Amino acid sequence: MRRLLLAGPDFSLAGVDPRSTPGFEGGKKEGAASLSAGADTLSSLQAKLFAESRAGSEIAVLLVLQGMDASGKGGIVRHVVGLVDLQGVQHHAFAAPTEEERRHSFLWRIRHQLPGPGMLGVFDRSHYEDVLVHRVRGLSPATEIEKRYGAISRFEEDVVASGTRVLKVMLHISKDEQKDRLSKRLDRRDKYWKYNPGDIDDRGYWQQYQEAYQAAIERTSTPDTPWYVVPADRKWYARLAVQQLLTATLEDMQLSWPRASFDVEVEKQRLAAS
Amino acid sequence: MRRLLLAGPDFSLAGVDPRSTPGFEGGKKEGAASLSAGADTLSSLQAKLFAESRAGSEIAVLLVLQGMDASGKGGIVRHVVGLVDLQGVQHHAFAAPTEEERRHSFLWRIRHQLPGPGMLGVFDRSHYEDVLVHRVRGLSPATEIEKRYGAISRFEEDVVASGTRVLKVMLHISKDEQKDRLSKRLDRRDKYWKYNPGDIDDRGYWQQYQEAYQAAIERTSTPDTPWYVVPADRKWYARLAVQQLLTATLEDMQLSWPRASFDVEVEKQRLAAS
Repeated sequence: MRRLLLAGPDFSLAGVDPRSTPGFEGGKKEGAASLSAGADTLSSLQAKLFAESRAGSEIAVLLVLQGMDASGKGGIVRHVVGLVDLQGVQHHAFAAPTEEERRHSFLWRIRHQLPGPGMLGVFDRSHYEDVLVHRVRGLSPATEIEKRYGAISRFEEDVVASGTRVLKVMLHISKDEQKDRLSKRLDRRDKYWKYNPGDIDDRGYWQQYQEAYQAAIERTSTPDTPWYVVPADRKWYARLAVQQLLTATLEDMQLSWPRASFDVEVEKQRLAAS
Repeated sequence: MRRLLLAGPDFSLAGVDPRSTPGFEGGKKEGAASLSAGADTLSSLQAKLFAESRAGSEIAVLLVLQGMDASGKGGIVRHVVGLVDLQGVQHHAFAAPTEEERRHSFLWRIRHQLPGPGMLGVFDRSHYEDVLVHRVRGLSPATEIEKRYGAISRFEEDVVASGTRVLKVMLHISKDEQKDRLSKRLDRRDKYWKYNPGDIDDRGYWQQYQEAYQAAIERTSTPDTPWYVVPADRKWYARLAVQQLLTATLEDMQLSWPRASFDVEVEKQRLAAS
């Protein structure tokens, strides 16, 4: 599945069908079963990542989630990341920057939220907003956006060099599916708080956002910090796909349980005598 | 159950049997079923707390977990807190203070980790270490410990006044149960990383720790920031008890879904036209 979702050199967002389920034959029921079956594997890998940090390792993982409003970023956090031990998760949702944040480089607030050793960091939105909404809404001039693609790549290279694997995922939904999901937020009293009238304004810029995503992915998908584009009209598929991407990322790290830093037999005797 | 676990004016830690299950008639199987049945209620309350903050409320909840090594603090985080949406959880495990932290008042690092609006904060260990291990190991003079009880109470009053409910839980295990649990950490390669030879040293001060807990609870259990002492030799009971304490705390807050801050009918029309 990972290979099919990778945004390689000739990637075209327009060529990705948001309702497709690349690399998975079954439907919703099979997808949910597969997600549930994969939870233990992911959990155990995350536990090893965390354990290694206790033995001095500096490695970590950062999952970057991007996507239009209602593309299911929160659902991924809840139903995929939520199945591992939250003690090893460092989650941050980036809202519009505060005044203090705006006084610094756009990467300043990002650096502050990078995962510590052994942690699985999760960014719900990220530094990519600064080349997405900024481009679409003209919040920064084109020359500045241009520079940011390079700044992002250099920044992410540094993050990787420091021992943190970076997994970048775009949840790709269709404009119609977004309409359905926003409509549900207007139908239920317990969903009103998730609704923002500004989301409708953004729908007017749908095509421009697609182009901004295409440009951002083209310019920043590298072998070390690749983008994966996950068709997300079917929530069950998007969740399964991100679970598999995370699992594969952790498997690549060849994690293992740390050796004892003490003499096990001596400690057994001390404990027995205590 | 809450009333039975409350450390009131005449509280005596020595009088609490760590194997008891106050307020619950069933055994392990019924306890697990009850925990599972209570997850949705707690989840829904947490979601309302989070939603209210999006509508401008400043209220939050702070769960403080204390207990001897292997008393099950991590298990509470994983199996009780872990069932709610991690996007609304702010978890922090306090280790021995760093050099920078030691240059400040003992409450300095605590203030930095207080939960933001709408969040369920969880402290795995806390400012209480500064009147527990400090008292037992003589890391601070008795006069300083004495002052800290007062400083803690004033600090917690401020936290409550700012809109954060404080739920303080001591997980109370027996020395024998701790031995069993530490022994498991020495029997399994995937548990070595949790083992710390210093834990055996602390077993030599068991009675002093009990006295330090008794003093801390006596001095800082107030109507607004009460302590609950949860018998924790049976993990299933401790988890169920903390779930019920959290649920009751959130129920007291009389949370509700925020009203729409926009005209729902107007937005439906805008969405339909978009």
